[in-house]
Amino acid sequence: MAAPGNTAADLAERLLAGDKRALARAISLVENDDPEGWALVREVYPRTGRAEVVGFTGPPGVGKSTLIGRLVEHARGREREVAVLSIDPSSPFTQGALLGDRIRLTDHFLDPGVYIRSMASRGSLGGLSEATLQAALLMDASGKDDVFLETVGVGQAEVDIIDHADTVVLVLMPGSGDSIQALKAGVMEIPDVIAVNKADHPLTDTMVREIRGVLSLGPQQGWRVPIVKTEASRGEGVEELAEKIAEHRVFIDEQGTLAERRRRNLMNEVVALAAGRLRRKLEAEVRDDPAVQRLLDEVASRRLDPASAAAKLLEREGG
Amino acid sequence: MAAPGNTAADLAERLLAGDKRALARAISLVENDDPEGWALVREVYPRTGRAEVVGFTGPPGVGKSTLIGRLVEHARGREREVAVLSIDPSSPFTQGALLGDRIRLTDHFLDPGVYIRSMASRGSLGGLSEATLQAALLMDASGKDDVFLETVGVGQAEVDIIDHADTVVLVLMPGSGDSIQALKAGVMEIPDVIAVNKADHPLTDTMVREIRGVLSLGPQQGWRVPIVKTEASRGEGVEELAEKIAEHRVFIDEQGTLAERRRRNLMNEVVALAAGRLRRKLEAEVRDDPAVQRLLDEVASRRLDPASAAAKLLEREGG
Repeated sequence: MAAPGNTAADLAERLLAGDKRALARAISLVENDDPEGWALVREVYPRTGRAEVVGFTGPPGVGKSTLIGRLVEHARGREREVAVLSIDPSSPFTQGALLGDRIRLTDHFLDPGVYIRSMASRGSLGGLSEATLQAALLMDASGKDDVFLETVGVGQAEVDIIDHADTVVLVLMPGSGDSIQALKAGVMEIPDVIAVNKADHPLTDTMVREIRGVLSLGPQQGWRVPIVKTEASRGEGVEELAEKIAEHRVFIDEQGTLAERRRRNLMNEVVALAAGRLRRKLEAEVRDDPAVQRLLDEVASRRLDPASAAAKLLEREGG
Repeated sequence: MAAPGNTAADLAERLLAGDKRALARAISLVENDDPEGWALVREVYPRTGRAEVVGFTGPPGVGKSTLIGRLVEHARGREREVAVLSIDPSSPFTQGALLGDRIRLTDHFLDPGVYIRSMASRGSLGGLSEATLQAALLMDASGKDDVFLETVGVGQAEVDIIDHADTVVLVLMPGSGDSIQALKAGVMEIPDVIAVNKADHPLTDTMVREIRGVLSLGPQQGWRVPIVKTEASRGEGVEELAEKIAEHRVFIDEQGTLAERRRRNLMNEVVALAAGRLRRKLEAEVRDDPAVQRLLDEVASRRLDPASAAAKLLEREGG
């Protein structure tokens, strides 16, 4: 028999009551792909959907974490409870830049109304997107009013993660030339709100004009993407940014697109979860099964083409 | 009966003989996911593995296409046959920036020793990576000595595509601040060769130093990533870049890592092909099957959690 206070039902109860340690434990279970974590999400899922989920993306070094720290302060001033989930990229390299960012959020570690968590990228990117949604659902269930998701980088993996948000904020700074080019070329998705941080830089207004130019090429109806100049280190522009985020939320709620967006994201998530499981099953087989290894030897020696090998792999599945 | 000259065997024969129109037709079949295309790749696969495959990545606007155009010239000067495959991102937006780039390659359209092809991103990213490999295999089988793959952007999708290359070249220009930050933070993979294009810019040397600083944080043994300054529009540095690419190729060949890299990439490809097929099957069901739609309604109304819905979806598959 499980020790009192440690059963799944008990953990769910404490989580729903807003207990921070229960939330931390629950997220670790999900992060480690523990079946108990999935059971917990299943149990608390009917109590989710209330939190406002905001995603923040943009290149490393633009000051996203500092800005999020300020938005946390702002929300706390309005007695809103906040959770922040930072998703770090998998790095074969140093993670120093990100560690520095994390430290800036520690001001809030002692505030019981704030919960901050980092999640590192695991091998599979689909896996991280899954884990992000589950963690965000747990934060939502634990009574947080605002859930802030933060990713570094602007590629497809980040888009998949940030798609769990109701509102997406792209944070740039003067000098984010690559990102503007990527927006312009359509490589990067158009966000709902753009913040130009470090706005004390002399090239800020040039950059704002450049972004406006890019946005003018996009759709001209519906939500108009606001560009907010911020100086997170001094707290400037934060109030306005918070307002624009709130306005976007009201806009999509009134237009009915919030429900639509959430349904579409949940649908994508269900497919991604199912496909991810199938893929992991395949990967395990490819790693461990000598018959599959022989199949790969044939591919490597150019006797069997990759598509035929894939078809043989699927036949073995009965698929 | 198929018209003479149009049967699969005939198409394969013409392709292997280096016929440009046969190659164009074959790639279209693969791009459109036509079973005849897959059959063709199966047939010519034993004749692949000879071409040197070089991938070029980097943010839009740095001049990748101009640089590739120069490398094509350089290869032609050595009587090598070249194929270029440019992979465009899916854009809800304008593709003007990329069209401009494409035009710069048209100098070579009339040269029978050069084949240039663009492939647009399709809905599924896995699908594009698949199609890229198949197209590259067809180019290889048609007798090209060099296959250049070009992607725009630096996210995970581009990494998956560029992984089909033996050598990966990252092209930057002074002002590619976001990319350097991404390299530094470990968001972006370390390439084999770095070209700093538009090297007439006064900040070029500062940038080269910055990149050296980032590389010094990485592994210090094995291949040392060279940084080459180029001015593609004037042809400067192109000779040196071509040499560094060739040196990398010799290095991995001698170290045995070329065979290892290709085996790993082929293995990933087989898994991706199999997983992609399973995923597309799931997506079709989610779209078309009323029972699955009801499952999603339950998820959207918070009665059933996404993971349980995914499990139910898989049960239906007998998976």
